[in-house]
This record gives sequence, structure tokens and C-alpha cells, in this order.
Amino acid sequence: MGRRPGDDTITEMRAVRRPKGNRRELENPNPEARQRLLDAAEDLVEEYGEADIRVNDVAKMAGLSVGTFYLYFDGKADLLVQLVQERTDRLKERMAAEQDGTGTAAEQLDRGLRVYLDFVEESPRAFLHFLAAGALETTHGRLANWAVDQHAADLQPLIAQAIDAGEMRGHDPELLAQGLTGLVQHLAGFWLEHREHYDRRDIVEFIREFTTFGISP
Amino acid sequence: MGRRPGDDTITEMRAVRRPKGNRRELENPNPEARQRLLDAAEDLVEEYGEADIRVNDVAKMAGLSVGTFYLYFDGKADLLVQLVQERTDRLKERMAAEQDGTGTAAEQLDRGLRVYLDFVEESPRAFLHFLAAGALETTHGRLANWAVDQHAADLQPLIAQAIDAGEMRGHDPELLAQGLTGLVQHLAGFWLEHREHYDRRDIVEFIREFTTFGISP
Repeated sequence: MGRRPGDDTITEMRAVRRPKGNRRELENPNPEARQRLLDAAEDLVEEYGEADIRVNDVAKMAGLSVGTFYLYFDGKADLLVQLVQERTDRLKERMAAEQDGTGTAAEQLDRGLRVYLDFVEESPRAFLHFLAAGALETTHGRLANWAVDQHAADLQPLIAQAIDAGEMRGHDPELLAQGLTGLVQHLAGFWLEHREHYDRRDIVEFIREFTTFGISP
Repeated sequence: MGRRPGDDTITEMRAVRRPKGNRRELENPNPEARQRLLDAAEDLVEEYGEADIRVNDVAKMAGLSVGTFYLYFDGKADLLVQLVQERTDRLKERMAAEQDGTGTAAEQLDRGLRVYLDFVEESPRAFLHFLAAGALETTHGRLANWAVDQHAADLQPLIAQAIDAGEMRGHDPELLAQGLTGLVQHLAGFWLEHREHYDRRDIVEFIREFTTFGISP
């Protein structure tokens, strides 16, 4: 609450409710083991949804013991928070890799939208589950807000620059970044649940036309 | 999944996970008792958030017994689902009361936005909590989707008419209804969490300008 997006650098975000007892501090954490657990969790969420996954199954699928699991995560909520963080970082990296600063602002937005929808399409069920899991309280506020804020903060400099250059209408850059991010997230979710009626091109064309020209005839 | 918004009339929506045992069927349900329980729950959610309310406290605040509570609701999740349904109905009614069909489409959208933000301002914490509680699975899909679908379905005829009349750009009416509803919901949530930086007028002006003209300069 009251935190401005992008204010702070996040080193580690945690679920708020920790189970009793404290996680042992690892002297030599193994990033590969942690990543295997995250990958297993992502696959299980994609297949079964976050409500139905169990720590036991995650450990088993990763080929590790439950004891090892608890060296890296405080429990299921913490695993999910860290998985959303990892997914968001991955998406941000892919977005950044596509942005070489060339082309008009509209072209750059188009590229961003393409990368976003690619990501969504790769794990549609996990995307929907995490959209729904946004209620999870973390040490950095609600998980859903955090993820949107990350993307909005990344978008804001492009927007501010385009407005300065007269390439974009003079909206408030922060509100526009939030508006675009919230809009795209919502419509991506709507699309995934209505793919028998809308294909990706419909969604892209609508987003492009609507965000460019609005509803004015 | 795959349900088109507005397809079905909802008589009763329930949380998916019922507690063991079945609620007794009431021969003569008392709508006033049910409403007192819903009002008490709404006040408690506004004050403490949905995670922290207890069935005991809701019954006590409504001046009714816990036994009576369970005549009307299956448990806390069911209470929350029915409270969101009641809040959504109330907002829909207030929206409809403002829509006498006069004025341009833009004026009608403006009136709708005003009613929506009035509602949000009256119980800001409950709005945020229910935004976050959207993950709740109900017999009609995710709670958040259901509420957005309700408003989008109400908006769609106005949009379709305005497009036909050449008052509005020829977007897909369903996508535009979803886009506008998702955008307003997201920005209302953002605003409530950043009221020290943005006042209501900033949000209204941004929504109006952006939805009317988009980002084109």
C-alpha cells in the first residue's frame, strides 16, 4: 500500500505466512536444485493447477527429497511466490531482449505484445492459475500487483520517451503503463478462456487498434 | 472455461468447496436475516479484510446465532461468494438506474464510470479484498471473471449500438466491453493503492482520454 511501483529493488520476495519453525540457512545453496524444484512446480501447476499441487509431488518430480525442498522454500505458498517471481523475471528478460530501441514506439509496443502473448501461450494454464493466485500476500504486497508493477515499470521509460518525442499522446506515463499492462493482462486471460471464439490475431488486432485510436470513430 | 459471458442467467452461485454435511433446507427463509449477515460480513471485510473474518464474528455482529448463519450459508467461502454476487448486483442496479439511454455513448460511458468509482470509493478496502478474492472458484468459474463478465455483458449493447450508429470505432463489441471493464477495474485498484499520488480526477481524466483517443498523438 502506498508503495510506488518500481521504487525498490527486490532481492527476495516471500509469502507472508510462513509455517512454524525456521528454514535452515544453507551454507552452500545449489541453484540447480532450486531451479529443478521450480521447474517441477511449474509443470505441475500447468497440468493440475496450483490448488492441487503438493510439496511431496514437487520434490518427487524434481528427483529430490522433501527435506531438500524445505532447504529452498518455506512451503507451498513460498514456492508459488518464488515461481511467479521467476516467471516474471523470465518474461521481463525476453521482453528486454526484443527491445533494441529501434523502430517507432508503436512498433516497440507491438514487439512487447508479441513476446507477452508467446509466453502466455506456452503455459496457458499456469498463466491463468497465477492470474488467480494474485491474491497471495507477499512481503511486497499482493502478488498480482507486484507482477503488473514490474511490467509497468519496464514500460514506463519507453512511454515517457515517446510522449516527449511527440510520438504518443501526452497521458500520464505511469497511468498509461499501468493501463496498458492491466489491459493486456486482462485480455490475455479472457482470450485463454475463449479460444474457441477468438484467435490470437483477434486479440492482437483489438489491442493494437484500441490502444492506438481508442473508441473515437 | 469456454462459457461465453452472459450466456446464462445465474440464480444462485456457490463456492465450489462445501464443508462436510449439507445445509438444512429452509422452509421459510427470512431474506432480512440473510441480508443482515451479508451486511455484517461486508462491514467486517471493509474493516479487517476477508482473510481475517470468522463466521462467529459475522453472526455476532448481525445479532444472530452461528446456527442461523449456517441456515443461509455453507461456510465462509460461500458467504464471500454470495457477498460478491450481492455487491455486483447492487452496482449493476446503480449503473442501470443512471442509464436512461439519453446522451451520446461517451456521455453514457462517463456516467457509468462515475457510478463505478462512487461504489469503489464507498468501500475501498472491500473492493481491494474482493479484487484479490477473485481466485475463489465458484460453480460459475472464477469469481473475478464472473464479476467482470457481468459488467461487460451490461456494457456490450451500448457499445454495439454506438458502433452501429457510427458514434464509436468499429471494434469487436465483446472485446471492447471486456477491455473497458478490465481496464477500469485494474485502474480503480491501482488508484486505491496510490491515493496519495493520484486523485479521482486524474484517474477519470486518464480513462476518458485514453479510451477515447488511445495513445496516438
